[in-house]
Amino acid sequence: MNGVTRQLARFIVESRWNGIPKEIRHEAKRALLNWLGCALGGCHDVTVETALAALREFAGPPQAALLGRRERLDILNAALINAISSNVLDFDDTHLRTVIHPTVPVASALVALAEHTPATGAQLLHAFILGVETECRIGIAVSPEHYNAGWHITATCGVFGAAAACGKLLKLDERQMTWALGIAATQSSGLSEMLGSMSKPYNMGHAARNGLLAALLAAKNFTSSERGIEAPRGFAHVLSPSCDLDAITGGLGASWELAQNAYKPYPCGIVVHPVIDACLQLRGEHAIAPDSIERIETRVHPLVLKLTGNATPATGLEAKLSVQHCAAAAFIRGAVGVEEFTDACVHNPAVVALRARVTAREDAAVGKEAAGVDVTLKNGTKHEAYVPYATGSLQRPMTDADIETKFRALAAWGTSTCNAYDVIELLWSFDNINDAAALARTTVPSATAEFVRAAR
Amino acid sequence: MNGVTRQLARFIVESRWNGIPKEIRHEAKRALLNWLGCALGGCHDVTVETALAALREFAGPPQAALLGRRERLDILNAALINAISSNVLDFDDTHLRTVIHPTVPVASALVALAEHTPATGAQLLHAFILGVETECRIGIAVSPEHYNAGWHITATCGVFGAAAACGKLLKLDERQMTWALGIAATQSSGLSEMLGSMSKPYNMGHAARNGLLAALLAAKNFTSSERGIEAPRGFAHVLSPSCDLDAITGGLGASWELAQNAYKPYPCGIVVHPVIDACLQLRGEHAIAPDSIERIETRVHPLVLKLTGNATPATGLEAKLSVQHCAAAAFIRGAVGVEEFTDACVHNPAVVALRARVTAREDAAVGKEAAGVDVTLKNGTKHEAYVPYATGSLQRPMTDADIETKFRALAAWGTSTCNAYDVIELLWSFDNINDAAALARTTVPSATAEFVRAAR
Repeated sequence: MNGVTRQLARFIVESRWNGIPKEIRHEAKRALLNWLGCALGGCHDVTVETALAALREFAGPPQAALLGRRERLDILNAALINAISSNVLDFDDTHLRTVIHPTVPVASALVALAEHTPATGAQLLHAFILGVETECRIGIAVSPEHYNAGWHITATCGVFGAAAACGKLLKLDERQMTWALGIAATQSSGLSEMLGSMSKPYNMGHAARNGLLAALLAAKNFTSSERGIEAPRGFAHVLSPSCDLDAITGGLGASWELAQNAYKPYPCGIVVHPVIDACLQLRGEHAIAPDSIERIETRVHPLVLKLTGNATPATGLEAKLSVQHCAAAAFIRGAVGVEEFTDACVHNPAVVALRARVTAREDAAVGKEAAGVDVTLKNGTKHEAYVPYATGSLQRPMTDADIETKFRALAAWGTSTCNAYDVIELLWSFDNINDAAALARTTVPSATAEFVRAAR
Repeated sequence: MNGVTRQLARFIVESRWNGIPKEIRHEAKRALLNWLGCALGGCHDVTVETALAALREFAGPPQAALLGRRERLDILNAALINAISSNVLDFDDTHLRTVIHPTVPVASALVALAEHTPATGAQLLHAFILGVETECRIGIAVSPEHYNAGWHITATCGVFGAAAACGKLLKLDERQMTWALGIAATQSSGLSEMLGSMSKPYNMGHAARNGLLAALLAAKNFTSSERGIEAPRGFAHVLSPSCDLDAITGGLGASWELAQNAYKPYPCGIVVHPVIDACLQLRGEHAIAPDSIERIETRVHPLVLKLTGNATPATGLEAKLSVQHCAAAAFIRGAVGVEEFTDACVHNPAVVALRARVTAREDAAVGKEAAGVDVTLKNGTKHEAYVPYATGSLQRPMTDADIETKFRALAAWGTSTCNAYDVIELLWSFDNINDAAALARTTVPSATAEFVRAAR
């Protein structure tokens, strides 16, 4: 009987594209489009610029694109930077059961590698699906104790996902794949303590780079323990107070974790999302002008207040965990995107004034995924909305069109000059594309466009 | 009151060279000479070659030497490879209280950085001493629970040592140093499960590289938590079942962990060392020919049998944990160096025959650091030796001359063509050297010499 690491390696190596259900293939495209939007939105963030300032002079040949930018770096550094770009806005996807953000570490490594190791679109999609499966199953095996202990689970498990996906693209054999997972295990790291600093997205970059490196090392027969996950001194036992190893191997190939993936319509704490939905709905249905509002009462699950009951956020980052800010911004701006979590928006006098009129009330009858909002106008009129499940939840997923819209908004926020239509079309037909490297290339601005952007 | 991370950062930043005791400065030179020998002995190991085969095409400009080799890589990859070279033979130093091998991660990062950031010999020694102090104090704080949980402590703590040392060389300010330690914390990784595979020395390389990177990032104001070590979700609490944070900051500058550093005379499990000492002593004193031996009886602490009671090792690696092999090799070859732990030596008929005549007997009266050996010759003569403390123990340290001899033997084993005399002289006067980069340069073979070596 082989161990868990070896069984998982065999599954990844033996998996065939025609064994992947159609809806999972489509979900992979949705995940990649959502991810690419996040990267275009974040690629000029100060965190990305700072990391590049530190790394640039030590980087290797210009092998792979930095998404949305003109520079090219070696594939390991490109994986790192692209993971930072696509995670820095806190707008990437979520595997709700584990709170892993599955696409960032896997896709960042894979898309960089695809510029070095020729692959078709279908091969990249297939490797991506297997990478997500790997990291999410390992995450499930150690949840919730691992995350509760302080581990940044997207990083600690993401390194396995990146290794598995890149190992698949590199056509590792079973033993090499076992080593790749073992090398991933011994590199697994990342503390939740880093949330709120640049090291939060760095954790993702580190996972993407190290997972890719694990696969590259294994491809040259660099050995590791063959029981990196399950051994008494392996990942699961050392990094988690408890674990259920069967969750890694049980029913492999019969179910796919990508089916459980959720996309955020708003770049803030997910528990606030139904409140934002309700506010936007009220504003739209009743054409409510912000200065006509007397007060906004939100009725929420107790957890929402606990996590996001901050009536006076001081920064954009704090506003992401302020139900009051989210409600005020939704009514004033009619949209809750990246711009609504800038410091400028937080200090906007109209937002500040309306935020003071928002109350948040615990209501034990309201579920964790639901919210009620009552708005009272100065003329005495009252309107109510109740949202049982937020947009982006598994019960009410973002549509393909929603994800396209989000992509366009993020590309615009990042002042991307790429042709959004081209990128979207490329992705929906990605399983028929011969050269997967086209994906990264479509995001690169022309020299002229970049000159204009930089001059602004 | 500042937190532990900030206090440690302040100590590192404010430390002055004239505050370092003379004997600690000298110990730093001894540690570096021992380390450099290990690197020259290991720099052509298959583990190093395999890592290079995987990394070479992605590496950056030729900024730093690979010790004992002609190639140059970017400083991050040079730090990684040099750490693998200097650890792969299991011959590097040991901070006995924590079982951290302190020099590898710190020196590998620092010597690479010194080729990029100009530094004097004294500055490098100073940074090295502070790096060792940092990793060992953090190690003490989480010992023994952290290691017992399965963490490869040299890697998990070494990343802090490398960050501190490189941060000192880069002249980080207090806040940047705090970030460097935080970025080290979130990268801290490495499982003991990897022992016996190439990923064991890789753990060291990963720590050296990531510690250097942490310092480079912090130098550009890349932020992290400022409580990376002590926060509830920080390194100490997440990676150890218990910790004593006072061990990190108590008496900083009043005592130096480098004073507790030990050097191995033999590249095998440290518990066997007194047995080897006794065998070599008997062989030398009585001019015992191997084929005159009827039997060898070793009297050892129970732990020695538990860890190394393997009468029939199959490989060089297994022989490192075989008291029988070590005793036989000592009598036959009169030395126990790297060559005595090759597969060839393990299968040498004379060694096999004598190994079968070695018995190991538990003797509760023998201390953990001691051993007795009784040898009975075929003519009936008996000789006894008792070693209370092995060579290389803190009670009976290797002399400077011993370390020089070890350096020469390792350089010869690695077929180094460097001038050992020059390297040794350079190190003993290193505090007066203007350009610390000279250290790495002296180990690089000439093109002709390398051609000859490769042709052999």
